[in-house]
Amino acid sequence: MFSKQFPLLIFMLLFSLCASAQKGYDLWLQYDPVEKDLKDQYRGQINTVVPYGKGETLNVAVLELQKAYEGFFQKKLEKSISIGGQDVVIGVKNDLPPYVLPSVNNELTQINSEGFVIKKIFIGNTPVTVITAQSPQGVLYGVFRFIREIQLRKSLENINIVDSPKIQKRVLNHWDNLDRTVERGYAGFSIWDWHHLPELIKPEYVDYARANASIGINGTVLTNVNASSVVLTPQYIEKVKALADVFRPYGIQVYLTARFSSPLELGDLDTADPLNPEVRQWWKDKADEIYAQIPDFGGFLVKANSEGQPGPNNYGRSHVDGANMLAEAVAPHKGIVMWRAFVYSEHDPDDRAKQAYSEFVPFDGQFHDNVLVQVKNGAIDFQPREPFHPIFGAMPKTPLMMEFQITQEYLGFSSHLVFLPKLFEEVLDEDTFVQGEGATVAKVIDGSLNNKKLTGMAGVANIGTAKNWTGHPFGQANWYGFGRLAWDPYTDSEEIAKEWLKMTFSKDRAFVEQMTEVLLNSREAVVNYMTPLGLHHIMDTGHHYGPGPWVGNLDRPEWNPVYYHRADSLGVGFDRTAPGSNALSQYAEPIREMYSSPETTPEKYLLWFHHLPWDYQMKNGKTLWYNMAAKYQQGVEDVEEMINTWNEMQGYVDDQRFEQTQMLLQIQLKEAKWWRNAVLLYFQQFSGMELPDFIPEPEHDLKYYKSLEFPYAPGISPSWH
Amino acid sequence: MFSKQFPLLIFMLLFSLCASAQKGYDLWLQYDPVEKDLKDQYRGQINTVVPYGKGETLNVAVLELQKAYEGFFQKKLEKSISIGGQDVVIGVKNDLPPYVLPSVNNELTQINSEGFVIKKIFIGNTPVTVITAQSPQGVLYGVFRFIREIQLRKSLENINIVDSPKIQKRVLNHWDNLDRTVERGYAGFSIWDWHHLPELIKPEYVDYARANASIGINGTVLTNVNASSVVLTPQYIEKVKALADVFRPYGIQVYLTARFSSPLELGDLDTADPLNPEVRQWWKDKADEIYAQIPDFGGFLVKANSEGQPGPNNYGRSHVDGANMLAEAVAPHKGIVMWRAFVYSEHDPDDRAKQAYSEFVPFDGQFHDNVLVQVKNGAIDFQPREPFHPIFGAMPKTPLMMEFQITQEYLGFSSHLVFLPKLFEEVLDEDTFVQGEGATVAKVIDGSLNNKKLTGMAGVANIGTAKNWTGHPFGQANWYGFGRLAWDPYTDSEEIAKEWLKMTFSKDRAFVEQMTEVLLNSREAVVNYMTPLGLHHIMDTGHHYGPGPWVGNLDRPEWNPVYYHRADSLGVGFDRTAPGSNALSQYAEPIREMYSSPETTPEKYLLWFHHLPWDYQMKNGKTLWYNMAAKYQQGVEDVEEMINTWNEMQGYVDDQRFEQTQMLLQIQLKEAKWWRNAVLLYFQQFSGMELPDFIPEPEHDLKYYKSLEFPYAPGISPSWH
Repeated sequence: MFSKQFPLLIFMLLFSLCASAQKGYDLWLQYDPVEKDLKDQYRGQINTVVPYGKGETLNVAVLELQKAYEGFFQKKLEKSISIGGQDVVIGVKNDLPPYVLPSVNNELTQINSEGFVIKKIFIGNTPVTVITAQSPQGVLYGVFRFIREIQLRKSLENINIVDSPKIQKRVLNHWDNLDRTVERGYAGFSIWDWHHLPELIKPEYVDYARANASIGINGTVLTNVNASSVVLTPQYIEKVKALADVFRPYGIQVYLTARFSSPLELGDLDTADPLNPEVRQWWKDKADEIYAQIPDFGGFLVKANSEGQPGPNNYGRSHVDGANMLAEAVAPHKGIVMWRAFVYSEHDPDDRAKQAYSEFVPFDGQFHDNVLVQVKNGAIDFQPREPFHPIFGAMPKTPLMMEFQITQEYLGFSSHLVFLPKLFEEVLDEDTFVQGEGATVAKVIDGSLNNKKLTGMAGVANIGTAKNWTGHPFGQANWYGFGRLAWDPYTDSEEIAKEWLKMTFSKDRAFVEQMTEVLLNSREAVVNYMTPLGLHHIMDTGHHYGPGPWVGNLDRPEWNPVYYHRADSLGVGFDRTAPGSNALSQYAEPIREMYSSPETTPEKYLLWFHHLPWDYQMKNGKTLWYNMAAKYQQGVEDVEEMINTWNEMQGYVDDQRFEQTQMLLQIQLKEAKWWRNAVLLYFQQFSGMELPDFIPEPEHDLKYYKSLEFPYAPGISPSWH
Repeated sequence: MFSKQFPLLIFMLLFSLCASAQKGYDLWLQYDPVEKDLKDQYRGQINTVVPYGKGETLNVAVLELQKAYEGFFQKKLEKSISIGGQDVVIGVKNDLPPYVLPSVNNELTQINSEGFVIKKIFIGNTPVTVITAQSPQGVLYGVFRFIREIQLRKSLENINIVDSPKIQKRVLNHWDNLDRTVERGYAGFSIWDWHHLPELIKPEYVDYARANASIGINGTVLTNVNASSVVLTPQYIEKVKALADVFRPYGIQVYLTARFSSPLELGDLDTADPLNPEVRQWWKDKADEIYAQIPDFGGFLVKANSEGQPGPNNYGRSHVDGANMLAEAVAPHKGIVMWRAFVYSEHDPDDRAKQAYSEFVPFDGQFHDNVLVQVKNGAIDFQPREPFHPIFGAMPKTPLMMEFQITQEYLGFSSHLVFLPKLFEEVLDEDTFVQGEGATVAKVIDGSLNNKKLTGMAGVANIGTAKNWTGHPFGQANWYGFGRLAWDPYTDSEEIAKEWLKMTFSKDRAFVEQMTEVLLNSREAVVNYMTPLGLHHIMDTGHHYGPGPWVGNLDRPEWNPVYYHRADSLGVGFDRTAPGSNALSQYAEPIREMYSSPETTPEKYLLWFHHLPWDYQMKNGKTLWYNMAAKYQQGVEDVEEMINTWNEMQGYVDDQRFEQTQMLLQIQLKEAKWWRNAVLLYFQQFSGMELPDFIPEPEHDLKYYKSLEFPYAPGISPSWH
């Protein structure tokens, strides 16, 4: 009777007790009951957990395993103090009993300080699963990996996993302001409730740490790169400490953004010149003050002399001077400085795409050892598609940190389903050719190309107060995917998609296969309906919501979309070859040679590098104008296809997330059509050519699209007002 | 076996499936399983639900009953099309079968259009429970009441409840801006995600409507009284319509704030003069445009010529001119205008407390029938304690709407546990004496005193994006209590406290009794540690966070705390008797007479009406200074007592809310001490008297307290920057 009643009962309880709860809060950490046929098999291999050692990280590892176990098997996982049989033994190498070590010693030599070993071994005739590592953090990562194996319904029978992160600093960047607005945040507002800190520790802080630890993220920059110096006051350091204390057991270090003018603004000095001894001492003292509260403080992230932020240039000093000063302040505490290379100036008439390279490459080798230069994936700004940033490969003596944007500033905000690991993967896989073939961006980033001692990858977070963290239920996949790629930049995006879908929605094969295709195609869809063929930065200005290719009235030329597409009656595109801006010269051969001619330039980058006539004949024999129209139309149809597939998924997912995604896909479709219509009508003024037959009659005229205003579009920082 | 396994199973499932969900989202609508001994008894009386009639409100009534039933009994409640026995029959009077009507006809004559009857009747020998009303909305209210009876574990055996709301417009005021900041919002940000409307309908919109309907709230003003005209554009009306469509089945009308200068700002006219025919036509057209989309649109709430808002005075016109113009625009659609009496001017040298009365009372009888003048509970601004506003009772020919503030602008934000129904009740129970004894504020508001045709009560919402809606778990009680008092302003606050505690936390008697005491004492506590003995508006300025009695440098005199306490070496307090501002003259006798002497003034209002020497001898024989210190100390001890009680409640509540409340109480204690120390040290400069022995040595000196700055205190509207 019990077993017959069980499924119904589960259903009833789920409905009645959890029904009104919001779906999605649990992210990919859903520990649903294991199906009956697998349940005994799994449980037979997890009798008890036997932790060796002490410490809060080991404690949370045990708790997480217990939590998962109780979800999977509706039974408490007991803790033992000694090994029985079919137990899960966890602990760092040095804490394991001597009779366990020989069976894992070989594997332990293969991992780094954050890696782990999960191995089924025999102690005499007694089978046990050992999860061990060099550090407590490694053990925790191993436990999360072990749990994931069950979530993915993999066999534990002969489990033997040896894994280590390939990148050291795996960091989320929160562009969160102290008033809880989030610059480029589309999932509500900042989860950091500064006002109630340090006293009020919210459950979401812990769940944030759990989620990050489960995918190996080991650092978080709490504050916006457009920084406020207030976060460096004692009042706020106390608040930061409270968060650091929550995150520490999960192996997550906190970092802050350092506003370069802080010594001035906090009222202590009358200069922030990085070569001034008082300024240098001020930062040393400030670092000491922070480290006294937070001994494992990660360090500073700095946006300097960029988009109005103060920096060393204000005092006639260089980025090296600024970065090294801060690096010296945190060095005694083993802190690092992440110094952004995202600089461009309205006073520099040169192509914006060239400026960061021009400014930073000459500094190669001059930064201190604990400085990471943080470089966006492309030379402009987180577009739906950009060629890799030419700095990658061009600074062999400088640790370079990749900066990806997880929040979808230029990719439809939180309304569009876009699976970003596909974008990240494309960048990481690109070959810089700086040391011959195979010098991929991934190898630059993981340090293997030039034997770098310090490595990192940053992702601008898409996390907010939304009940499901990211607004769009599928935005969670981008957080997840960033973490997986920061751990291992060679991971296949298809594998990431499948894992995430199974853990988040359903393990049903039909669901996973169809939705994997949706995810993998979604990035090309957004490129098609926004910026195909190498177009870029033609979003409406300020908020970046929707198309604005007509905008040309902003003070700074490089903030105008017309700067980027350069459309005229002769053609469209940005000539970055030698006769043009020659940004192409910043790349190595054979890229330089190949991209110098439109014929040998990949069509996806065509208008990034070339200004071409509207009737330029492309590989398919059709004109550029025809192909451009076809791409926009394809983008719309891509979304229609996504909608069709999703509509068939109703049986596999809960109603709440099903309907929410359905509604969001309708927004995406509406906006894809908006993009198609507005951009084609705008460019048609220059091309003077008919829209191909396959383009439906636009709903509105160009005047209408140009008239649209969005004064309350989300993601605008108060500093932009 | 089943029954033995059951409790464990429930526990396990709860833990594993809901554990990581956030507690508190369900508010008071928690339908936990009924204890075994009562379960069969209840279930025997609810075989099926038999709805008569059609319509979306009836549909949601059925769904809500089914949802509750499934929670209570873990079994689906079936819908029948005909009465069997022990069914729950629901439907409006006119849809009930003829053989049911006679048993409820008598009760039906006792209710108004929103009231309901719940009655156990017999059809022949067949017992059934009938829930009926004049309107579908009444039926829904009846269903929620029926559910509440079970939540409170009352007997259904001979149920016979006849109830009607005593006030017509029971409205939440959201001070939510279109950028999702909330003025005086301390529970995160606006739940209205304007950017994704109208397409994305979030689950919280529905749950918001459910919660409101369950306590009888029938209207919501979506936007801030400091209004943006953008909400009146077609783009936003479409968004408002989407929300109205969600709320309609739950009997909730939407209202908007109307910015008086909209005809100008939206670019259509060059004046907003309310006597200009074009302006009048503009508002008529705008109303028609809104009603075409939202046929049951409630109307407008207006803050005019107050704190910088535009209004009729800008054109030399009166509040009557302005209100009546808008009233004419919405009248054809049965809309109303809620016109705020919260006006005061920096150009008027008269006591701020007098200005609203002086301006509005002469207009009595001049407003159109569909205008409600909305009056704050006190003459200043939502202080921890104020005497009732003298307008109440002074405008017998004008419908007056009560405006309470549920959000705790001046009462510790969302960090302090303050049970506001106690404050609301105090105001409602005050006797205005305008028509002899017994002319209470409640009778003014419910219209019974002067036979008013239109009645209303507004509450400034404390709702935001916080996972539990209100930030502080106990903030929910204030939303709940406001709804209960808007339905029936004579409800006892103790009853509200008990109901809410039982539905929200635990029905255990020990818990309910102890925590009821905590709730009922909590309001006096905040008065004690912030503004005892009639002190008021001595909060720090702008954000109103913490004490700021020393502030005296703001441009507008009446924005300065020193304006309100008037402390000097001679004494403290605001003389509002005849020799002073004579605000007292705005009250009826015998209040005027009684309060004119400090000896006969209730000590709780002492310094509101009198400036008294520091050594003034109070009823207990001690000096004013001593008594003031004693009150502040008492406030701190009140909070300590609350903490002690809460610490004993651990066994009755879930860990998450237990710990959260514990942390918040620590903030409250810290801030209570901060208030005590800062205010006493400040006033000591004037009194020149020693602090009594029972006051502990302050942790800091006055200079320190004066130096504190909170640039990112929550609840500041961008318009304040």
